[in-house]
Amino acid sequence: MQKRQQEKDSSTAQSVMATILQSIPKEAQVSKIDYEGPRIALYTRSPSFLMENNQIVSDLVNVIKKRIVVRTEESIRKNEDDARKIIAEALPKEAELGGTYFDTATGEVSVEVKRPWLLQNNPEFNSAKLTEQMGWRIRIRKATIIQSSTIQQINYNLKLSSSERSKQLKQIGESIFRPRLAQRSEVSLMTLGGFGQVGRSSMILTTPESKILIDCGVNPGARSPSEAFPRLDWANITLDELDAIVIGHAHLDHTGFLPVLCKYGYKGPIYCTEPTLPMMNLIQLDAIRVAAAQGRAPLYAERDVKQIMRQTITIPYGTVTDIAPDIKLVFSNAGHILGSATCHFHIGNGDHNFVYTGDIKFGKSILFDSASWNYPRVETLLIESTYGAREDIQPTRQEVESAFINAVNNTLVDGGKVLIPIPAVGRAQEILMVIDHYMKAGQMVEAPVFTEGMISEATAIHEAYPEYLARELRQKILETDDNPFDSEYFTNIEHSDAREEPLRDNTPCIILATSGMLEGGPVLEYFRNIAPGNKNKIIFVSYQVNGTLGRRVLDGSKQVSLLGKDGKVEVVNVNCSMIKLDGFSGHSDFNQLMSFVHKLRPKLRRVLVNHGERRKCESLAMNIRRQFRVPAHYPQVQEAIRLF
Amino acid sequence: MQKRQQEKDSSTAQSVMATILQSIPKEAQVSKIDYEGPRIALYTRSPSFLMENNQIVSDLVNVIKKRIVVRTEESIRKNEDDARKIIAEALPKEAELGGTYFDTATGEVSVEVKRPWLLQNNPEFNSAKLTEQMGWRIRIRKATIIQSSTIQQINYNLKLSSSERSKQLKQIGESIFRPRLAQRSEVSLMTLGGFGQVGRSSMILTTPESKILIDCGVNPGARSPSEAFPRLDWANITLDELDAIVIGHAHLDHTGFLPVLCKYGYKGPIYCTEPTLPMMNLIQLDAIRVAAAQGRAPLYAERDVKQIMRQTITIPYGTVTDIAPDIKLVFSNAGHILGSATCHFHIGNGDHNFVYTGDIKFGKSILFDSASWNYPRVETLLIESTYGAREDIQPTRQEVESAFINAVNNTLVDGGKVLIPIPAVGRAQEILMVIDHYMKAGQMVEAPVFTEGMISEATAIHEAYPEYLARELRQKILETDDNPFDSEYFTNIEHSDAREEPLRDNTPCIILATSGMLEGGPVLEYFRNIAPGNKNKIIFVSYQVNGTLGRRVLDGSKQVSLLGKDGKVEVVNVNCSMIKLDGFSGHSDFNQLMSFVHKLRPKLRRVLVNHGERRKCESLAMNIRRQFRVPAHYPQVQEAIRLF
Repeated sequence: MQKRQQEKDSSTAQSVMATILQSIPKEAQVSKIDYEGPRIALYTRSPSFLMENNQIVSDLVNVIKKRIVVRTEESIRKNEDDARKIIAEALPKEAELGGTYFDTATGEVSVEVKRPWLLQNNPEFNSAKLTEQMGWRIRIRKATIIQSSTIQQINYNLKLSSSERSKQLKQIGESIFRPRLAQRSEVSLMTLGGFGQVGRSSMILTTPESKILIDCGVNPGARSPSEAFPRLDWANITLDELDAIVIGHAHLDHTGFLPVLCKYGYKGPIYCTEPTLPMMNLIQLDAIRVAAAQGRAPLYAERDVKQIMRQTITIPYGTVTDIAPDIKLVFSNAGHILGSATCHFHIGNGDHNFVYTGDIKFGKSILFDSASWNYPRVETLLIESTYGAREDIQPTRQEVESAFINAVNNTLVDGGKVLIPIPAVGRAQEILMVIDHYMKAGQMVEAPVFTEGMISEATAIHEAYPEYLARELRQKILETDDNPFDSEYFTNIEHSDAREEPLRDNTPCIILATSGMLEGGPVLEYFRNIAPGNKNKIIFVSYQVNGTLGRRVLDGSKQVSLLGKDGKVEVVNVNCSMIKLDGFSGHSDFNQLMSFVHKLRPKLRRVLVNHGERRKCESLAMNIRRQFRVPAHYPQVQEAIRLF
Repeated sequence: MQKRQQEKDSSTAQSVMATILQSIPKEAQVSKIDYEGPRIALYTRSPSFLMENNQIVSDLVNVIKKRIVVRTEESIRKNEDDARKIIAEALPKEAELGGTYFDTATGEVSVEVKRPWLLQNNPEFNSAKLTEQMGWRIRIRKATIIQSSTIQQINYNLKLSSSERSKQLKQIGESIFRPRLAQRSEVSLMTLGGFGQVGRSSMILTTPESKILIDCGVNPGARSPSEAFPRLDWANITLDELDAIVIGHAHLDHTGFLPVLCKYGYKGPIYCTEPTLPMMNLIQLDAIRVAAAQGRAPLYAERDVKQIMRQTITIPYGTVTDIAPDIKLVFSNAGHILGSATCHFHIGNGDHNFVYTGDIKFGKSILFDSASWNYPRVETLLIESTYGAREDIQPTRQEVESAFINAVNNTLVDGGKVLIPIPAVGRAQEILMVIDHYMKAGQMVEAPVFTEGMISEATAIHEAYPEYLARELRQKILETDDNPFDSEYFTNIEHSDAREEPLRDNTPCIILATSGMLEGGPVLEYFRNIAPGNKNKIIFVSYQVNGTLGRRVLDGSKQVSLLGKDGKVEVVNVNCSMIKLDGFSGHSDFNQLMSFVHKLRPKLRRVLVNHGERRKCESLAMNIRRQFRVPAHYPQVQEAIRLF
């Protein structure tokens, strides 16, 4: 108790400032100490001193238990042209300098480089010296083959809003580090969506000090607003009562309602991993276009998505971040899609540790490592259950890959075309990696691979964040010239005129196109041409919902009708073969979910199950109870559960 | 669905008014239709027509499904003096007219009469004619032997606030009968106190339309505010968001925080049964005195208790009352204390029925009938569990009564005195009835019975509401001159000087005095005198909490120290005998709780357990699950449970 009191005292704003001032030597030339969101920024006129003596800052972090960043004072920052020249001179030519992006809110310059590995352990490249020279902290990034227009948009927006963001980050910091009022911790979880159901994931973590909204999805399949959106109305809170919004990953069922909150005036911070920001922006903007194409009024406009960019604070995996006076957040790899994270909330001074898996893949894929599980502490685990029933067992990766190779090879050898209807984000990149891998290894017949839709843009975002990819893939990208995303087999179809090539007769090829359930998008144009040919094949790699064209085709319909471009109904004969492959899923199957819980078992006091149809939640909860002897429940939407 | 739509339409404000206007004949001379809280008031210049043709109103109630009251137009009301003269002339002399109380907010006159049975089926007493004559609706009440000063205070306050209340009742009505916004019903229960614990009972029933606070108690034993009071802070609502407060019974652990809500600006209606209002006022005012005596700052002042009187709408048992656009409330006898009620909430158009037992006695006592259980429908039951463990079995009434008789007789025959430390409300009246019954029957040695403290005031309130007493007792009071409350054995000690009589040497007698655990109050003065005498006896009939003087004495201490009047510590030798009797409890024992659930079993979908220590809740829930195969849970404080 006494220890805790001391910890508390040493974390008050005044004592933090005093500790910093006492610990920083004069040579550091620190001229200002300020909040920058969840971090404390030390502004200096001589950044190289603290960069070279980085022990000073890490010692300080250990004492004050807060993140510290070293920033350059604005007065020493060279103008962007001069700074870029200095960079160009300092880099070895072979590294190949790409774009540079200056963020005036933080004084950081992101430098894109084609061969970043040439800068590592290179005595001629001294980033401290370079920072001192130009007054901007340098951050080296891998230059991508394809430029992601989403990331460019974000950078442009951040530049426009930099002075606004500086102020906002300071306010957020003041709010996070305000004094705690309550002596005791108390923790409740309010369920707003995605409990006993898939879709509209959302919940609020509350303590007497703070309220954190976790995920903010939509349920696209729902008929009424009370079933489609998170039940913020039931939670009876106003948006300015929220301390923060935390987003686990980019999919619409976790982020689709977030722009609406910004539209209606949410002004606080949004936390997610670095790639989640462009990924969710891409998906949120696409949802506007899809709504328009289907004649529905979109829920929000482009400006609301832009607003999200300005309020988002990105955090890498594994970084402990204060997001409220009594809550620390750590993201860890969830293995589901790029940037997907499990969220670990450390509440009070260790009073309670709550882990929310979000969508999780506890199994390795080519793109991602298996989800992390090594949390120092976790008393309450909230786990998804998309495949939570005992019978939800997927084939092994080896099995599904060899089935895929066979299916593709048979068709290509026969001179046919392979069409893979696919969601743009995640699964498409995984299939591309599989194809590249096996073609290069000589196990798959070589043939051109065409991509369509948002796939190429999503791929560009993957390439921009190699730190978030599986270890082997990351090493390939960051340390060699062999970049699988830049495979010579791949061709992106930028415009519908270019479709002639993949559709040319007697040219075996593989085509990946959206949408994944033949519900719309470019895939239909290919389907119209490919389905009648009995040498061709359609490979489904994702779930086909009842009522979709994909499902009808998969179920064996020999004739289906489409709405043609001219508005007339067109009958398509389906003579091609088809196959459905499970096992490329970004979700854990039943065994993987149980293994994940098993790993955490020694620490757990309680498991909650969400994000699955009711009977999946029920089944997983029951099996966890029986096998691991730990209390497990599956709340519904509109419940509050006392965690501590 | 269509039927429901129709029902909904016919209940909108406009159609209600239209229906009334069409159904009321001209002869009724209705000149105004207005809301009066949850009722619709028809103001007439000729009240006798609707009173004599009461079929018209009951037909109308069946159509509009709302309560209707007939009120006299203000212009026809005679002044109070003239009206009283008319009453005096109309009543038979032998009925003995007592006080009259005119409520200008409702145009009702309460007439106290010593022998009300003389007016029943008396052709000479025509209340419709009398109402027509004086312009006030007449309500006959039994005149009590002792005047309850609490009830007089309430009447005085209602008179002072009558014009304010008229306006307020209209506003409440408009709020209750506002149009429903949501199509579907959704029901959640938020637990604010009294779950997994005894004390600070409180919860909020929420639907998309409305929020009802049920009970608002304190936990007097708790150390910190976060454990002592309902967690309205956690529920995150403001007081003006509440549609209503519903109070089940008067005890402090269900009402002790209510004055604080009024203090901080709650302006809405408070619903309880008729006797619960004076009972809770008495108890709430006493709590101020107790706090002052113990040197603590009271939570609220007398004016806050007065404010409660003005906002309370009393409802008799069995009357269906709209309290929100989508919620109807019915109180039924809970058998626990005077006016104690189980609360039945009928939500939506029958979408869900929720019954909260409050403190419940499912077993007959002399004062009260056994709790009602015959609800037309109940899907969710919330039941208390004070004695919820399997081993919590009380002796039968017969056993405890004969033990009591023996204990008293032995001492009285021996020439000793019997001291019964007792809580003022409920248990004291029960013991008085037992004594009167057995003394009259010749089974108990006749001796004077002295009462002290608030007991006499509480007894007066019991006498004022004979409708709420057990059938036999009620009949005695309402239909005969044999009124057990007016027993010749009883003497109330109004002032401490009068204690000489009960304390006189060698005078066998029985003394009932507060408090029940020897923690303070007049009982200590008697204890000091009676404990040293080895012929005397102390009978404990209520639970003695650990650490109280009562518990120490019961555990066999032969010497105890008291703080004397002069502030000096005084040592008291305990030579008298003592006995503890269970079975007079106002709570159901384990078997009675199970029997109650058994009665409801065919209707139930789910049982929730509260108001018991955690292991009592757990035990009762488990036994209900096992024996009745119905889901049963025991939530904690600060949870929300989706009921529908």
